[in-house]
Amino acid sequence: MSEQLTKRILTELEDLILIDPHTHINPHSAASSTLADLMGYHYYTELAHSAGLAREQIEEPDLDPKEKVSRLVPKLADLQNTVQVSWLLEMCREFFDFDDDRITTDNWESLYDCAAEKMAQPDWEEQVLNKSKLEQVFLTNDFDDLLEGFDTSRYIPCLRTDDLVFHLQKPETRTRLQNATQIEIQDAASLTNAIGSLFDHFTSHGARACAISLPPDFAPQPVEASTADSVLQGMLSGRELTVDESATISCFVFWKLAEMCAEHRLPFDLMIGVNRRVYENGVFQGQDLFDQRTSLILYQKLFNAFPQVTFPISVLAQTSNQELVSYSWIFPNVVTNGHWWYSNIPAYIELDCRSRLQAVPQSKQIGYYSDMYKLEFALPKFGMYRRILANVLATDFVIARNWSEERALDLGKLVLRGNVERIFGD
Amino acid sequence: MSEQLTKRILTELEDLILIDPHTHINPHSAASSTLADLMGYHYYTELAHSAGLAREQIEEPDLDPKEKVSRLVPKLADLQNTVQVSWLLEMCREFFDFDDDRITTDNWESLYDCAAEKMAQPDWEEQVLNKSKLEQVFLTNDFDDLLEGFDTSRYIPCLRTDDLVFHLQKPETRTRLQNATQIEIQDAASLTNAIGSLFDHFTSHGARACAISLPPDFAPQPVEASTADSVLQGMLSGRELTVDESATISCFVFWKLAEMCAEHRLPFDLMIGVNRRVYENGVFQGQDLFDQRTSLILYQKLFNAFPQVTFPISVLAQTSNQELVSYSWIFPNVVTNGHWWYSNIPAYIELDCRSRLQAVPQSKQIGYYSDMYKLEFALPKFGMYRRILANVLATDFVIARNWSEERALDLGKLVLRGNVERIFGD
Amino acid sequence: MSEQLTKRILTELEDLILIDPHTHINPHSAASSTLADLMGYHYYTELAHSAGLAREQIEEPDLDPKEKVSRLVPKLADLQNTVQVSWLLEMCREFFDFDDDRITTDNWESLYDCAAEKMAQPDWEEQVLNKSKLEQVFLTNDFDDLLEGFDTSRYIPCLRTDDLVFHLQKPETRTRLQNATQIEIQDAASLTNAIGSLFDHFTSHGARACAISLPPDFAPQPVEASTADSVLQGMLSGRELTVDESATISCFVFWKLAEMCAEHRLPFDLMIGVNRRVYENGVFQGQDLFDQRTSLILYQKLFNAFPQVTFPISVLAQTSNQELVSYSWIFPNVVTNGHWWYSNIPAYIELDCRSRLQAVPQSKQIGYYSDMYKLEFALPKFGMYRRILANVLATDFVIARNWSEERALDLGKLVLRGNVERIFGD
Repeated sequence: MSEQLTKRILTELEDLILIDPHTHINPHSAASSTLADLMGYHYYTELAHSAGLAREQIEEPDLDPKEKVSRLVPKLADLQNTVQVSWLLEMCREFFDFDDDRITTDNWESLYDCAAEKMAQPDWEEQVLNKSKLEQVFLTNDFDDLLEGFDTSRYIPCLRTDDLVFHLQKPETRTRLQNATQIEIQDAASLTNAIGSLFDHFTSHGARACAISLPPDFAPQPVEASTADSVLQGMLSGRELTVDESATISCFVFWKLAEMCAEHRLPFDLMIGVNRRVYENGVFQGQDLFDQRTSLILYQKLFNAFPQVTFPISVLAQTSNQELVSYSWIFPNVVTNGHWWYSNIPAYIELDCRSRLQAVPQSKQIGYYSDMYKLEFALPKFGMYRRILANVLATDFVIARNWSEERALDLGKLVLRGNVERIFGD
Repeated sequence: MSEQLTKRILTELEDLILIDPHTHINPHSAASSTLADLMGYHYYTELAHSAGLAREQIEEPDLDPKEKVSRLVPKLADLQNTVQVSWLLEMCREFFDFDDDRITTDNWESLYDCAAEKMAQPDWEEQVLNKSKLEQVFLTNDFDDLLEGFDTSRYIPCLRTDDLVFHLQKPETRTRLQNATQIEIQDAASLTNAIGSLFDHFTSHGARACAISLPPDFAPQPVEASTADSVLQGMLSGRELTVDESATISCFVFWKLAEMCAEHRLPFDLMIGVNRRVYENGVFQGQDLFDQRTSLILYQKLFNAFPQVTFPISVLAQTSNQELVSYSWIFPNVVTNGHWWYSNIPAYIELDCRSRLQAVPQSKQIGYYSDMYKLEFALPKFGMYRRILANVLATDFVIARNWSEERALDLGKLVLRGNVERIFGD
Repeated sequence: MSEQLTKRILTELEDLILIDPHTHINPHSAASSTLADLMGYHYYTELAHSAGLAREQIEEPDLDPKEKVSRLVPKLADLQNTVQVSWLLEMCREFFDFDDDRITTDNWESLYDCAAEKMAQPDWEEQVLNKSKLEQVFLTNDFDDLLEGFDTSRYIPCLRTDDLVFHLQKPETRTRLQNATQIEIQDAASLTNAIGSLFDHFTSHGARACAISLPPDFAPQPVEASTADSVLQGMLSGRELTVDESATISCFVFWKLAEMCAEHRLPFDLMIGVNRRVYENGVFQGQDLFDQRTSLILYQKLFNAFPQVTFPISVLAQTSNQELVSYSWIFPNVVTNGHWWYSNIPAYIELDCRSRLQAVPQSKQIGYYSDMYKLEFALPKFGMYRRILANVLATDFVIARNWSEERALDLGKLVLRGNVERIFGD
């Protein structure tokens, strides 16, 4: 009974037109050109490297895309068990009529060619969006992105702020900021003005969120302008900052961002828990890990200080999920946001999805985002989530709580789409 | 097969007469008078507030109970997915013949009136106890509670000690202590005498436990009377204590409580992990959260120092459950106690219940307590636990280990009732 | 369908001949002589003690084995729910034709006698190995073990190094090291030579791994020989070392071990997270617990510094499993290793097994080791793991991902056996 029920709910969920509220899509080149764009995704390169493929093989300068794929394919056998490879296969089946059960040294080349041919069709991007039932795709834009030359009603700008908060010490960050805003950074006041100018630029181009990823030990707090001023003087003089001074500047900028989110009525996406460059010799984007010893209690002051700002929160450590559930259950401005990176595998999504649906108001849950770099990934990633969601709706709601299928389905649609629309507004 | 089996076990578990080993019941007003007593439970007010209802709407002074319910009802739609609302519906169905599948602006008023009528019946309290199969209900009494005017064989006193350990610095706490014991607090010796006097009072009125909730960073250790004396002098002089001094007094009092538990043969319920007032503008009782970064290793000295005291332990963070399982498996005086607050949702109870039944001696597990403020909540809360327990017994014992149903059922009865009787004695 | 499927996969997995990559077997007395050898395993003594049996009853000097069993048997009733007792029953059924559903004061004696008789058969060890389908058993040898008098192609030596890293301050450790290597420990250089000599000795006797268990706060880092020298002078002079100095020596020796592993091409098994002697009055081997607040980020420098060394990693806290999954997914030299101690119960194995199979390259997972002290335990422990593995293969691969049974089975065989062979080489 439960199997049929899950299938019926899943079929209905598959009809839903999606908004993907967090991706790394380049709107000027949203879809892929070759299979190398798919298999070059860090999930495959880092897993292949982890299973023994040398980084130099993967990241050789000017590597031909077909050659790159030919080097990765033999390693797929060692990775076949991973859910990430199941995404790859699903894309190949759905987009390229691939019907083998794995990609091997024998069959990859025809797959590559078939993919290249399809991807070369002028409407490939449209085809992918249609097949994936994707209506809108949120971007992750550098703060100095011009936001021009693409359709901002389809590709929604979001202001990514990691560089501002954590790399303002680098002269090139400040140069970029000055160039983007035409404001010279001299002190806390001009820095604040520059940040405000970025928000004006982004919101005037339809931005719907400010976003940042944060290390596990980050603890936001307000910083007096005078305190920031004295550290900024040191920074601008070219002196290397102490650890404490760096933290002061990070906190100052972060708090300003929250203030601007309040002023410009933008949600502030917090992606909590990543340590950058833990594996120094890893492949591109395959170097970051985490320390599970973190807590949302570090954000207590922030959540209290900005009741008018919505904070959609992603946690990297699965062990943080219960805190996320509980903080969303108590704080009106805290919202659960998807299943991020190392938590984005079925065993963890299932547990996290169940606990959220059991204890967080239904209006405060953003079910899923793809985090994709290329448009083709929305299909298998949302597919994975929908299957888990359908099963949880069937088991925990229709069966355990005697809900009608329609009611359970409405709940599913809300977390998959309705909340995205309402929380990120328009 | 498994479905029928679970159902049979559940039916048998439902026949069991219960003792609820931890509640916040007021024995002078145990059952509810109106639906506002149920919907005023912090789970509903805090979730409604989290979903957008202003605190002022909920906590307006002298708010009429019916008006209060009318304000909460529209928010129930946003909370319908939560297990807490499923408790509410189950109470309405079981106690008030409600047969809609949700409480709405259309149907709430007749429900309210029906409930008010039933609750006005002179034997309502008895009806609730009977229908809930509740025999005894443990209380959480302030240390200066007179413990008079109620049937202490039904409503079992327990000495709650948070104020003594964490708020002795407040003059009113000391005044209450002096009034309750007729002992003037002048130094460590008189403080010890006063605490002893409380234990005499409580045990002479049939108390069965001492209880306390503790923050995640609390680390109990013995404190010399002379050390306590010097801090107490500062406190009594009206000087504000340093953080270290406060910790010293907390440790001194806590350790004394453990000594008194040993002397009076009382179990010491430890509820570990809560941070108070994290969300300062939250509704009443909806302000507390937690920091998952805690460990039972902080209690190493305590568990070693008091082998003769039983410590029933509840943990707020679900990530603490494996430590609880392991410490209960090793320390003879550590016992698992229920599923507390933010861990009291099916996704977590299920995992915690399974791990405890797989690794902790069956005699050392207190399956569940309701933590309720009003008597009607025992029914849906124990109901939720029993369904999970029945499923675990069916799956992990009858099916996976080939136990007879009777044997699995005996295990279920032990954790639901037998252990409560034995551990808290009489 | 799923039930039959799981059963078919399980049946095939049960045909597999095993290598057990981590045990505490004494190769001179691998199998048991009486039931007391089985019931004297710390799991039973510590659980019986936890349930109320006095340590003195269990550890009375010169206690007759039969008397010891007679004292433990009555406590089994309180432990019957634990998975550990299910192992005991499975051994009794499989090895001693026991067919009751529990061991009681009525039936234990005939069981004891029957076991003693079987165990007295000259080929008992062979019988156990055959019935358990065990081909090779990895040992845990003290660093000064002569490694003589047993078949090192069946019982594989492994160099256990806890004493060297954490107890070099004890004069007897240094004496043992000097006796084993004929090298006088005078400074960093001679200590390094002595450690090198141990590796020569072990690898010349077929050792396949270096192994160590580590406390939750251990953070390995390189130490200059000159720094180590000055601390060693203090140690050798008999002065008690400070906490920092002890940590320095531990780090120095640990780092040398990693260097020797590189040089001798040995995997370095890290068993992370145990606090020793937490319960001081516990039974033998029943005193250790853990602090879940630990992270693999503490090993960042190590993993980066030794890309040529494979680190099979076990974690004691289940909450560390996601870090283990993620670090194994990123670092080529990090490998998941079994389910250790307090994490070795079905509820946790299931979740950990699923997450590993979903996200770690299949070639980087060592499915299980028994950690046994007596040979009979491999059968029920591997049996428990195989049942969970079969279920995960059926559910997550054959059903959810449409894999053929054969393909799923190949994956199972790889993590159960193939990877052990490849990772520990020969």
